[in-house]
Amino acid sequence: MSNFKTYINENKDRFLKQLREYIAIKSISPKEEFETDVDEAADWVAAKLSDVGLENVKKIPTKGNAVVYGDWLNAEDAPTVLFYGHYDVMPPGDEAKWKTKPFEMVIEEDTLFGRGVADNKGPHFSHIVGIQSILATEGKLSVNVKFLLEGEEEKGSPNILQALEKNIFDCDVVFVSDGQMEYDYPVIEYGLRGLVYLEIEVKCLKKDVHSGSYGGVVDNPAIVLSRIISKLKNKKGKITIPGFYENVRKLSDEERHILKKVEKGDEQICKNTGAKKVHGEDGFLNIERIGSRPTFDINGLWGGYTQKGSMTIIPEKATAKISMRIVPNQTHEEVENLVRNYIKQIKTDTCEVSIKSLHGGDPVLFDWKSKQFKAARNALGKVFGKEARYKLVGGSIGAVVAMKKALGVDSVLTGFSLPDCNMHGPNENLKLENFLRGVEVTKTYLEELARK
Amino acid sequence: MSNFKTYINENKDRFLKQLREYIAIKSISPKEEFETDVDEAADWVAAKLSDVGLENVKKIPTKGNAVVYGDWLNAEDAPTVLFYGHYDVMPPGDEAKWKTKPFEMVIEEDTLFGRGVADNKGPHFSHIVGIQSILATEGKLSVNVKFLLEGEEEKGSPNILQALEKNIFDCDVVFVSDGQMEYDYPVIEYGLRGLVYLEIEVKCLKKDVHSGSYGGVVDNPAIVLSRIISKLKNKKGKITIPGFYENVRKLSDEERHILKKVEKGDEQICKNTGAKKVHGEDGFLNIERIGSRPTFDINGLWGGYTQKGSMTIIPEKATAKISMRIVPNQTHEEVENLVRNYIKQIKTDTCEVSIKSLHGGDPVLFDWKSKQFKAARNALGKVFGKEARYKLVGGSIGAVVAMKKALGVDSVLTGFSLPDCNMHGPNENLKLENFLRGVEVTKTYLEELARK
Repeated sequence: MSNFKTYINENKDRFLKQLREYIAIKSISPKEEFETDVDEAADWVAAKLSDVGLENVKKIPTKGNAVVYGDWLNAEDAPTVLFYGHYDVMPPGDEAKWKTKPFEMVIEEDTLFGRGVADNKGPHFSHIVGIQSILATEGKLSVNVKFLLEGEEEKGSPNILQALEKNIFDCDVVFVSDGQMEYDYPVIEYGLRGLVYLEIEVKCLKKDVHSGSYGGVVDNPAIVLSRIISKLKNKKGKITIPGFYENVRKLSDEERHILKKVEKGDEQICKNTGAKKVHGEDGFLNIERIGSRPTFDINGLWGGYTQKGSMTIIPEKATAKISMRIVPNQTHEEVENLVRNYIKQIKTDTCEVSIKSLHGGDPVLFDWKSKQFKAARNALGKVFGKEARYKLVGGSIGAVVAMKKALGVDSVLTGFSLPDCNMHGPNENLKLENFLRGVEVTKTYLEELARK
Repeated sequence: MSNFKTYINENKDRFLKQLREYIAIKSISPKEEFETDVDEAADWVAAKLSDVGLENVKKIPTKGNAVVYGDWLNAEDAPTVLFYGHYDVMPPGDEAKWKTKPFEMVIEEDTLFGRGVADNKGPHFSHIVGIQSILATEGKLSVNVKFLLEGEEEKGSPNILQALEKNIFDCDVVFVSDGQMEYDYPVIEYGLRGLVYLEIEVKCLKKDVHSGSYGGVVDNPAIVLSRIISKLKNKKGKITIPGFYENVRKLSDEERHILKKVEKGDEQICKNTGAKKVHGEDGFLNIERIGSRPTFDINGLWGGYTQKGSMTIIPEKATAKISMRIVPNQTHEEVENLVRNYIKQIKTDTCEVSIKSLHGGDPVLFDWKSKQFKAARNALGKVFGKEARYKLVGGSIGAVVAMKKALGVDSVLTGFSLPDCNMHGPNENLKLENFLRGVEVTKTYLEELARK
C-alpha cells in the first residue's frame, strides 16, 4: 500500500487538474443544446481509460448518448468487477445561487466545488485514478475490471439496455459509487424501491360550466377525484387498495437489526422537510418506511380555475399525477393493475376516468450477505476506519435495475459524498479527503474481492 | 295603446340607430384600458335619459365607475318603480368566433347582433325608449319612475352600495330585465342563491421533497386536501358539514307546484353540459336543486408538479378554491363559520390549513305574491301572449341583493333574451321582436302598477 499511497500523493495535483478538465465539459444530458459537450465528455473519459492502462476501450453507440467501455481482464481465474458511473450531469440551475462558477472546479477548505464533482464525475474518476495508481505501482490488478460509463443517467438511463445487450458486460458484481455516505460512516445500499407513476383524469363535463346555473345537478370532477384519492390511502398512512400489500416482503429480524443502525431520527426528517411531525405506518422504523415499505403519493394535481380571484365554474375535468414506490416482491405491472381495477370499481357513473401510465420500474434487492458485499464492507471499513452500514433506499436507479435484469448481477451501491453535497443543486461539492478515499477504495475492494 | 304602437313603429329605425351608437361604445368594465369608453357610455346614456324626458339626470360618482340616475316623479300618490340596468359590457373575447363585428350592431334575420345587445344595453334601452314613447304620445307616466344604470355589473357591482346610500333611490319595486326568458314563455325570477367562496391551502412541508427519499415518512398535502374535500360532500350530493342544512328554507307545496312548470329536463342539462347523467339530491326537481337547494363545488384545485412527464416530488402544499351556493335562510357568515369549524375538526396534525374568504354574498328571496310581482306577470302576459312563469335562480346578482339590503325593496327579475343569446360569449344576440316587446312591457308594467 505504501508505494500506492506515495504515488497518489505525488500525483494528486495532476489528478485534480485532470478532474478540473473533466468538470469543465458541460455534459448536461437533460438539455439538447449540450449534445456536443456530452459527446466531448464521452471522448475525454474514453481517452482517460486508455491512458491509465485499460484495454478494449470503446464508445458503444445507443439511441441516445454513447456508453463508454474499457476493461482489464488479465487476472486469470479471478472474479470480475464492473465499475458503473455516468459522465453526464444535471444543469447548473440558477447560477446566482452558486458561490463559484459551476463548470470551473475549485478547491476551498479541502472541498471540491463544481457541477459533477459528486454526481458522478468525481467518484468514478476516483476509480479510474485508482486503477492507474495500482497499475503504475504494481503492474497488474488482483481481479478483472470493467468500466461502464453512461451518458444518460440524469435522464433516467432510457437507453442503457441497448448497450447491456452486448455480452461484454458480464461480471460478478457491479460497483457503483453514485450514492452518498453518512457524515459519520460509509454506507452500502442493498435495495431500491420501484416506481409506478400514473396520471388519472376524471372528466364529468364537456366544458367548464357556471356553478350558479348547474351547481346541484351535475357532478364535479374535482370532488370525484378527491373522493377516489381519499380511498387509496388512509389517515394512518396505509394504502387501502385491496391486495396491495400481498406480495410485500417481510424483513427478517436480522435485517431489522442492521437497518436500525442507519435509522433516521424524526427530528432530522422534520428539519430537512419542514414537516410538523413524521407521518408513516405504525410499527416500522423510519428507515423501514423509506426502504422496505411501499408508499403512495400525489405528485401533482390540477383542475378548473387556478388563478387569482373567484371564478364560479364547475370544471370539466380534474387530473392527478400519483405514484407508488413499490418494494420486493411487488412488480410494477401487478401494482398498476391493482390500482386500475380498484379505481374502476370505486368510480361513479357520472364521470369518465382515464389512467395513463407515465413510468413503471421494478424494485430491486441484492444479497447483502454475498461475498461481494462483504468484500465491499471490508474495503470501505479499512479505508474509512469506520464500519460501513447496510441500508435500503427509497428511490429508484434505473441503470442498477437494468443491470440486474440484463446481467443477473448485484450492485454494490455506495458513495463518497456527504448528505449536504448538493447533487443536482447549487454548490455541488465533494470533500477532497473523500475523493482520495475513493481512489483507495478501488484498490482495497479489488484486493478484498481477490480473497478466496 | 294604438298611438303608442304607431309611435314606436314610426320611430323604430331611429331607436335602432341610437342603440347602434350605444353598442359602438366599448364600455368594457373588466379591462382597465377601456376606462374612457366606460365613461363615454355613462355620458351617452345620461344624455339619452334627459332627451327622453327624464328629470334630475346625473352621474353619481363611486369609487369605481359612475352610476347614472334619472327620474320622473310627477305621478302623485302613485307607486315608484326603479329600472335597474348596466351600461358596462364584457370583453368580446376571441373576435374570430364572431360572425359580425362585436361593436358594430347589425340586424340579421330579425335578430340584433353585437356586444351588449342582450347584456344589458338592449334591454334597459328598451325601457328608455318605452318611457320616451309614452311621454311623446301621452305626455305623462301612470306611476313614478327612476332609472339606475351602473357601470360595474360585469365586475360584480363592487361599488353600487356607495351610490345606494344616497336616498334618491327609494322606490316600491325594482324592475330588472337583465335575465333571460325561455324559448316559449317569459319568466319572472323571484329568488337568487348566495355564495360563499373560499380558498383552502393545506401545507405539510417547507418545500417540495423527493418522493423516493421521504415517501413513507411525511404526509402529503394533496392527499390531506383530497381527504378534507371528500368529507364535505358525499357521493349522493349531500353536503356533510354538520348543521349545514339547518336553516335551509323548505318550499311550500304551492311553490313546488309553480316551480314544476319551469322544470329543466335531465336531457336538456346533459345536452348543455355534456354530463353523462344528472347528479343531484334525491327527492328534488332539477329546478329545485338549482334554485332552492344549497350546493358545494370545487372551482379549482392545484398543487405540486402539473407539467408534462413524471416528476417524483411530494408537494409542499396543495390548494383548492371551493364555493357553496347558499339559499334562504342561510347567511354567508354562518356558512363560512360552519365550514371553517368543521375543517378545523377534521384536519390532521401533520399540516397547517389556512382558509381565505374570496367572496361572501347572501341569498335573496322576493315575495312572488306581492302586487308588484302580479303586475309584472300581467304585463308580461299581455305583451308576450303567454303566461309568465315564476322561477328560482341558482346564480347570484350582487346589485339585486344590495338593493334589497339598502332599499328594502324586492326586484322583479325578468329578461327578453333567449337561452342561446350568448351573453358573455361571441355572437351575443337579441331578437328584434323581443327588443320591441321590452319597449311595450315598459308601458304595460307601469299601467299594471298603477291599478289600485
